[in-house]
Amino acid sequence: MDTTPLASEAELIALLRPLTVGAPGAFGLRDDCAQLTPRPGFDLVLKTDPIRGGVHFFADDPPASIAAKALAVNVSDLAAKGAKPIAYLMALSFPEAPSRGWLQQFAGGLQLAQTLYNCHLIGGDTDRAPGPLSVAITVIGEVPEGRMVRRDTARAGDAIYLSGTIGVAGLGLQLRAEQRDGRDDLARRWGLSEGHRIALIKRYLQPEPRLGLADAVRAYASAAMDVSDGLVKDLERMCLAPGVGATVDATAIRFSTAGDAIVVKYPEMLATLITAGDDYEILAAVPPSQTAAFEAAAAASVMSIARIGTFTAEPGVTVRRADGSAMTFDRKGWDHF
Amino acid sequence: MDTTPLASEAELIALLRPLTVGAPGAFGLRDDCAQLTPRPGFDLVLKTDPIRGGVHFFADDPPASIAAKALAVNVSDLAAKGAKPIAYLMALSFPEAPSRGWLQQFAGGLQLAQTLYNCHLIGGDTDRAPGPLSVAITVIGEVPEGRMVRRDTARAGDAIYLSGTIGVAGLGLQLRAEQRDGRDDLARRWGLSEGHRIALIKRYLQPEPRLGLADAVRAYASAAMDVSDGLVKDLERMCLAPGVGATVDATAIRFSTAGDAIVVKYPEMLATLITAGDDYEILAAVPPSQTAAFEAAAAASVMSIARIGTFTAEPGVTVRRADGSAMTFDRKGWDHF
Repeated sequence: MDTTPLASEAELIALLRPLTVGAPGAFGLRDDCAQLTPRPGFDLVLKTDPIRGGVHFFADDPPASIAAKALAVNVSDLAAKGAKPIAYLMALSFPEAPSRGWLQQFAGGLQLAQTLYNCHLIGGDTDRAPGPLSVAITVIGEVPEGRMVRRDTARAGDAIYLSGTIGVAGLGLQLRAEQRDGRDDLARRWGLSEGHRIALIKRYLQPEPRLGLADAVRAYASAAMDVSDGLVKDLERMCLAPGVGATVDATAIRFSTAGDAIVVKYPEMLATLITAGDDYEILAAVPPSQTAAFEAAAAASVMSIARIGTFTAEPGVTVRRADGSAMTFDRKGWDHF
Repeated sequence: MDTTPLASEAELIALLRPLTVGAPGAFGLRDDCAQLTPRPGFDLVLKTDPIRGGVHFFADDPPASIAAKALAVNVSDLAAKGAKPIAYLMALSFPEAPSRGWLQQFAGGLQLAQTLYNCHLIGGDTDRAPGPLSVAITVIGEVPEGRMVRRDTARAGDAIYLSGTIGVAGLGLQLRAEQRDGRDDLARRWGLSEGHRIALIKRYLQPEPRLGLADAVRAYASAAMDVSDGLVKDLERMCLAPGVGATVDATAIRFSTAGDAIVVKYPEMLATLITAGDDYEILAAVPPSQTAAFEAAAAASVMSIARIGTFTAEPGVTVRRADGSAMTFDRKGWDHF
């Protein structure tokens, strides 16, 4: 890795310029603003979700994964709204000038991520400021006009669907933390194979927004959001409309084979997994008449989903164990404040 | 001022929610994303320019002015592109929970600014993270399709116009710094009246984006940008196209009556004013055939502009004194990196 510190903003921009290829409104980062010509018949969907070293990632995480995560956490929100990303702006704040090699790898991670998600860098800003490295992406997506899927429009009786697996990134975060300390106590205690250990850390480092579900969500969901602060906390956010609550069957939630093995060994970890953050899965409300079509559409997109419960007329979120008893949680998820 | 620390993200959002009134796509900040329905026949113009305590403002500046500045610096870029703001997203990062009073004043500053600029908050994000307070606004504006004014399209022979005054905020920054230290040495040395001292500090605390010039810029300028990192440095950025340079007549630049008085007393301050930052003025290239119309349009909008020089075929930026000699600069402006 080229450890020469970047000498100027111009050098930094030159390394990021390839990310604009294909987006004429980026003007090769040679203008102060970006231009976007909206497609007729589409609404724009916008999200800004910055990530910061020490809070959302470790400063010594691989630069490519920091970059990919910065874009993924924003794209994840679009996917849950039934939208597809088209472009993004990125404001970087460095406590000290990064090396050329660091920025090359960072740009490489973004190049990979934006290729997967089919969008381009169109503008941004760079500063030197004390404090942690901050990567603030604002992503712009599109949906057919009037079709953005809302968060607070679930109705009692709708089925609750959840994509992928929950709690996996939370486990990965703990494993990554001990890896940085040169330890492997947790991996041993949890009885993880090396394959599982790697898979969990990868899930923490490289969240995968469920863009493949965006069309199915838009077609069949009455409401949706992405789960990033913990399943219980986020599900409560979906129940903000008056007279809507939710009952979840804990046995229907998928935790990955590694997660399952840990829960078998340490049953108290069940609550930890259900309230962990960084999942970037989609939580969707689907009316009973649409569940078959939603499941078929997800299967056609090779996207894993599980029906984990039902929206109810009683307020509040209840998670029931196999024996029908309600779980209690010391904490329901991440509070960013 | 209510010094109770804000207890939760929900309380913070409740204080910011009034800023979304009038923007249906903000969903009252009750969704994870914002929605924007573009007007047919218009392009969107986007900019993200975060400001951070200790870099772009003092942490103990009035909350209302921090807020207004965070929006103004972004709107200023739009104005220079001939665009009008329609909406903005805002990501806040606090080192520690602000007090309710602080956030109320901050929201008040934004309310005033967005009323002036005719745009609304439509979404955002809040985090607690070590480091300075950061206010990262992404503004979305619009221009009639294909009409965004570019930065690198000036042609040799075009007149150089500059709005308002230059160097004033730079003086204000120095006065604000000594005010914080309980001193007034500079104000005395510069021989400033109290009215001038206040005007200069105000200019630093509350930049005024030149939105009133946006229509004239779009109608008559061949290229434009906002001046925020220093006149010489920014003018060099306008001369990036091959075979375009600029000659500026220092006597044509306006520095305000306070600035003029300081230069009379301390001629060496001329270079300081010309290269100071935080001006948020518009620099425009206007073809000779359009200068009369541009001046008339600016006058009709009661916007002050000055013709300060000419774009030339020789590369580089030359600033000439009254005697025709070329000025030299130790630094040409702010480098954010």
